[in-house]
Amino acid sequence: MTNRVYNFSAGPAMLPTPVMQKIQEEFLNYQGLGASIVEVSHRLPIFREILDSTESLFRELTNLPKNYRVLFMHGGAQMQFSAVPLNLMSRKSHKGSYFITGRWGILAEKEAQRYGSTEILMDTKEYDYRQIPGYDISKLDQESSYAHLTTNNTLYGTRWHSFPDTGSVPLAADATSDILSREMDYSKFGVVYAGFQKNLGTSGTAIVIVRDDLLGNALPETPKLLDYALFDEHHSIPNTINVFAIYVMRLMLEWVKEKGGVPEMEKLAEKKSSLLYDVLDRSDFYLTLAHPEHRSTMNVTFHLPQAELLQKFLEESDKEGLFALKGHEKVGGARASIYNAMPLEGVAELTRFMEEFERKNG
Amino acid sequence: MTNRVYNFSAGPAMLPTPVMQKIQEEFLNYQGLGASIVEVSHRLPIFREILDSTESLFRELTNLPKNYRVLFMHGGAQMQFSAVPLNLMSRKSHKGSYFITGRWGILAEKEAQRYGSTEILMDTKEYDYRQIPGYDISKLDQESSYAHLTTNNTLYGTRWHSFPDTGSVPLAADATSDILSREMDYSKFGVVYAGFQKNLGTSGTAIVIVRDDLLGNALPETPKLLDYALFDEHHSIPNTINVFAIYVMRLMLEWVKEKGGVPEMEKLAEKKSSLLYDVLDRSDFYLTLAHPEHRSTMNVTFHLPQAELLQKFLEESDKEGLFALKGHEKVGGARASIYNAMPLEGVAELTRFMEEFERKNG
Repeated sequence: MTNRVYNFSAGPAMLPTPVMQKIQEEFLNYQGLGASIVEVSHRLPIFREILDSTESLFRELTNLPKNYRVLFMHGGAQMQFSAVPLNLMSRKSHKGSYFITGRWGILAEKEAQRYGSTEILMDTKEYDYRQIPGYDISKLDQESSYAHLTTNNTLYGTRWHSFPDTGSVPLAADATSDILSREMDYSKFGVVYAGFQKNLGTSGTAIVIVRDDLLGNALPETPKLLDYALFDEHHSIPNTINVFAIYVMRLMLEWVKEKGGVPEMEKLAEKKSSLLYDVLDRSDFYLTLAHPEHRSTMNVTFHLPQAELLQKFLEESDKEGLFALKGHEKVGGARASIYNAMPLEGVAELTRFMEEFERKNG
Repeated sequence: MTNRVYNFSAGPAMLPTPVMQKIQEEFLNYQGLGASIVEVSHRLPIFREILDSTESLFRELTNLPKNYRVLFMHGGAQMQFSAVPLNLMSRKSHKGSYFITGRWGILAEKEAQRYGSTEILMDTKEYDYRQIPGYDISKLDQESSYAHLTTNNTLYGTRWHSFPDTGSVPLAADATSDILSREMDYSKFGVVYAGFQKNLGTSGTAIVIVRDDLLGNALPETPKLLDYALFDEHHSIPNTINVFAIYVMRLMLEWVKEKGGVPEMEKLAEKKSSLLYDVLDRSDFYLTLAHPEHRSTMNVTFHLPQAELLQKFLEESDKEGLFALKGHEKVGGARASIYNAMPLEGVAELTRFMEEFERKNG
């Protein structure tokens, strides 16, 4: 009906068509206001209601404990690479401890060096970032200001299946690429943050979930708009918020709820990713990247035997309405990003295409 | 046809209906791609083309000299209250000099104190921010790292008609509320920045125009996503950009060009604001706030004789499709924000309403 492709983009990514249709439908006139939601003050009750219900829907979907605050901040997850040390580094030893399992962890640790010392607890470079090996958590300095990890690695298609118990050291997690795709016990974390542009809507903004005892410790050099306490105090509007992004996020959360919530998203993610991993595991043609035990359910990565075949694969899949399957430039190969919005049918189409492509070219 | 009100919101603000219709029309399927522009990677050529043409249209509309760079950064103008000192303060004396003509100047100066010393060149508080008095520019320390001003003050409805010549001290200007509404000689400035949500589209992002010799001086504590040099190096995509905001900005710029460019916007702004100031000047009922010599052409502020009459004015205007006329909470009264997108007819409707309201209640 809408002639939309199956969009496997890693982010900004596909959004559910019903969400997109709703945005389109009311874009010129929000709820009979005679103006678009993007044309009204972020201080009007009509927007405040959206902001409030976005927060409460998120709390409901994640069973968020009461002692956690929900903030919406500018700049996406990478701005949090700075905000996490700026807000937490003043605790205890002025040291951030990093689990590095891919590109985002590397960048996060590098940024933290501006604001204190850092310690690398794990670096999976020696495994080409294809797996997340075991770690002796007793080695973590309990005087660390915080520990940091990336829950899911978009480039290599790996994820943490369970998270380390960091004791009294607050665990900060970049959950950009798998938030709301699996059940998570937020009480195990000090901070969880995520850019919107995968499972939460459109780009430019991040959600930050922070345990309330961690607020109010920002370093003096913290720019005001990176200070968690200020955002908490002003209910995320110390200045003009990204109105459109919040509005879209609410629609995304409503859609997740309607679909059965996070448990259903998790089941769907398992099912979709299994379909793809099954094709890859049966094949002598495609080469999977991620170690079977640490495979992501959001980003399925694989290589083809030759560069020419990859090019052909990308061109032919595109022609069949299977869009944006090219891998990240740092990794190469192909990647199917299958966030919450990707329907099972899209993945079924892709597996059919992959098997046919293998038959013809294998 | 679209049943849209005349929207006098100070920001986020009314956008031109043809721009809104275009966004709506192609929202589910951008140029036959089968996906929305908000669903594609910011690194794809289809988005890069939008980014590039947004920059070149902006350069064309402003006659921007070649030695200025155009950056698109997260967080709106207030993030620049931090970014300006972080990027310029290391020059010379580590001192920022501020012309304070209203709330935004106050906040900008306060933020700069984190990163060096500040000097207040002018504070129009003694005039209740209703005018911008003359200033002896010879008092400016030529060793200052930069001087800063706000071109137009949304709260009080004042503006700088002409700008001080700061000699070798780079002048940084917050032009959020009047950018593209009047011709400006950018060569007189070191940095000009503006949040998008008035004349450039939707909220959450800012444009930063910076003279190239000022790049590369960021203080060591600068968060990477506030570093001008990094944004210049990565053509504004060191991380995921606000794709929607850039896309809308391009449509806004195309619309300005089609309407005759900045000179025509300036004429229209003069015409619209004159209609309103004429009503106010003829009236013994409404009280204007801004001094006639420093009146804004973007934000027309006025008081009514009593609080009850203000309430009645706001309710009745709203019923007649004249939306969001309430003044800023720090100032009270009424305010008509008439950015580029406000048609002359909207202002004519408002003046008709104001005169009738005065007749009935004066």
